[in-house]
Amino acid sequence: MEKVKVGLIGFGNIGTGVVKTFQHNAEKINEEVGKKVELVKIADKDVTTPREVEIDSELLTEDYREILNDPSIDIVMELVGGVDPAYKMIKEALRKGKNVVTANKDLLAKHSAELIALAQEKQVALAFEASVGGGIPLIRTIRDSLAANNINYILGILNGTSNYILTKMYDEPDMSFEEILVQAQELGYAEADPTSDIEGYDAANKAAILASIAFGQKITLDDVYTEGITRITPRDITYTSELGYIIKLLAVIRKMINGVEVRVHPVLLPEDHILSSVSDVINTVMFDLDLVGNTMLHGPGAGALPTASSVLSDVIEIAKHLHNKKVPRFLTPYTFDREKEIVSMDDVVSGYYIRMQVYDRPGVLATVGSVFAKYDVSIAVVLQKESNIGGWVPLIVLTHPIKDAPMKKALEEIKQHDEILRGDPFYIRILDV
Amino acid sequence: MEKVKVGLIGFGNIGTGVVKTFQHNAEKINEEVGKKVELVKIADKDVTTPREVEIDSELLTEDYREILNDPSIDIVMELVGGVDPAYKMIKEALRKGKNVVTANKDLLAKHSAELIALAQEKQVALAFEASVGGGIPLIRTIRDSLAANNINYILGILNGTSNYILTKMYDEPDMSFEEILVQAQELGYAEADPTSDIEGYDAANKAAILASIAFGQKITLDDVYTEGITRITPRDITYTSELGYIIKLLAVIRKMINGVEVRVHPVLLPEDHILSSVSDVINTVMFDLDLVGNTMLHGPGAGALPTASSVLSDVIEIAKHLHNKKVPRFLTPYTFDREKEIVSMDDVVSGYYIRMQVYDRPGVLATVGSVFAKYDVSIAVVLQKESNIGGWVPLIVLTHPIKDAPMKKALEEIKQHDEILRGDPFYIRILDV
Repeated sequence: MEKVKVGLIGFGNIGTGVVKTFQHNAEKINEEVGKKVELVKIADKDVTTPREVEIDSELLTEDYREILNDPSIDIVMELVGGVDPAYKMIKEALRKGKNVVTANKDLLAKHSAELIALAQEKQVALAFEASVGGGIPLIRTIRDSLAANNINYILGILNGTSNYILTKMYDEPDMSFEEILVQAQELGYAEADPTSDIEGYDAANKAAILASIAFGQKITLDDVYTEGITRITPRDITYTSELGYIIKLLAVIRKMINGVEVRVHPVLLPEDHILSSVSDVINTVMFDLDLVGNTMLHGPGAGALPTASSVLSDVIEIAKHLHNKKVPRFLTPYTFDREKEIVSMDDVVSGYYIRMQVYDRPGVLATVGSVFAKYDVSIAVVLQKESNIGGWVPLIVLTHPIKDAPMKKALEEIKQHDEILRGDPFYIRILDV
Repeated sequence: MEKVKVGLIGFGNIGTGVVKTFQHNAEKINEEVGKKVELVKIADKDVTTPREVEIDSELLTEDYREILNDPSIDIVMELVGGVDPAYKMIKEALRKGKNVVTANKDLLAKHSAELIALAQEKQVALAFEASVGGGIPLIRTIRDSLAANNINYILGILNGTSNYILTKMYDEPDMSFEEILVQAQELGYAEADPTSDIEGYDAANKAAILASIAFGQKITLDDVYTEGITRITPRDITYTSELGYIIKLLAVIRKMINGVEVRVHPVLLPEDHILSSVSDVINTVMFDLDLVGNTMLHGPGAGALPTASSVLSDVIEIAKHLHNKKVPRFLTPYTFDREKEIVSMDDVVSGYYIRMQVYDRPGVLATVGSVFAKYDVSIAVVLQKESNIGGWVPLIVLTHPIKDAPMKKALEEIKQHDEILRGDPFYIRILDV
């Protein structure tokens, strides 16, 4: 039986999942490929800490170059994560004519165009199914299954940690964001440093990758407008629920006449929207397509074994196609050579949910109303649920759709009215698709 | 630019969708393939009835052999539907070395193994993404994206018409099954002859195809235990709702220690089950996998353009891989050569919802209880919601999980007790996964 040899750089959590998969599902993998796929070398700077998997110590090395310099290895899996040193490792691997499989969203959201061009120059594959959506097959679905469609938009719940926290805020209306975050950390659903998850950067990395592939433009993290979920309070949960909405951190990637919108921020979804029911750490991506209409993929967006499933799907595909050390060009067909046209956030249109802490006295609404009118912000709903004559109360305003720029100007001007307002107004956009 | 020529047999509803797609999305298709994909011939026995698409009359022919005999055509799309004459057409096409793309579930549920073997012998592709799930990419997802996983089970809402009817029965509790069916026919959601949809055969065809691919066994329609939805009444909707369940027509494909369960029948799903919220004509398939866990695909299971999307995804894949008139073996990798092991329905274990029309008098429960006890059927819930002393009332029983064979024997025996019973007991299985 023909053999395909594979090396692994990065023996952490996901790397361990990949090694387990090679051990447990070898028969399935070999059967799919029609060749024997062998994991022959594992590199990590730490080769001594015990992992949850038995491994022949001869496979281990501290020097990743042992993998790159082994001419018998055709496929290298990079599971180190982070931009450096993974960037250097992948470039070296591609230059040496290795096919590369990676799950590295941070790296791809920065350097995908360059790395893909290098892979194409070297006639090898660069595959990254695991970089977005964990075990959910998004990249390949766009590339193969939906290939005949033009994509209108993609909506994605792409970060499990923030979706878990938001879900819990609905389940536990008396707990603050901070309390729920601590609980999530204790349960292992949030990392010790949760910044990337709760500030939206993790989802933004994934959105940049999806947007690049969907629209053939070199879209990087810097192009993604990003807001996190840290300012959402139990009051917002209560009020939006009463108004018939659910708050989700959503990636919105959308083809408009003047370019592509790529943004990650909290949104209000109507309760009966199909994405509203996606709870806990689950990821879900909805595509709107010119032929299919709406279709949706749903599953675990993280975790060692789901991610290993996607890594191995890439390894299997490359191994199948490998012939005389070459793979066909169309295994890495993404060329991001369309002119980049990103819609400025100023021009993005949404309705707004606005929560302000105002002084409970006559004339407040008149002031708010006149500022909004000045910027053509049309008010749909005003809610003052509590009463505290002479004190501070939350005032909720829902607006009709309006561009971001005038809305933000209106909010800036309202902030000047400290005779009626305490603190900054807080807003969440209402999903407009 | 290199050219790939394509012929279409069958210019009906889906054929028209495919022609439209070739016209509107030519640029996208050619870009994906990196070659010019041309539709050069369309065969149909009726070439005169106007379609919703403008077409050069020179492309049309009444003789499908014009396509098969044209050596310049590499890919043939069979969209005639039904077993005959499509079976003959596809065999002829494969024998002549054409790659074949089909959406024909009836044909594949009967002859897939033979046709796939023929394609492999001739070194051409037989592709059928559109045969299951319309615009939802199921076949390719199993083949490529989930390839490293062993599949534990697949649950599918695979028939839009029956799902639409069941959804309406919840929305309109005063309308009978028959009234809703007539309405669905008027709205175009059910065909003039709805038998295949409402009796479960359409879903059973799709289940046979999915099961064959998932488990590498030659599973045909005859192997699929099939029940439809025609005996479900508004009372069942009301009672199951009160008990916290939703009725769905589900395909269950499941690997057990003693073989594969392949069955299509109504089930009671807990209200909070993710498949319970799938309404109207939408199709949804949930996979349970050894690496990924649960993942779900959701979208339009029928319709001309969604189906065209899947047909074209196959055409694009074959066109990409075509090289010197050959495609690689792994484009049609399914060999159903594992020994067929289907779990007998007698051995399938479920809880049961049973509705009986009984005489409202003392002793009835004792009779029912003693018959159930004789067959070791353990009762979980008994509900008699109405009272009609001396007359007939519905009696609802929910059982604990039990094999099909003893359950059916118990129901047979209860049927003999015509002193307490009017009509046959009606049952629905409770989903057990």
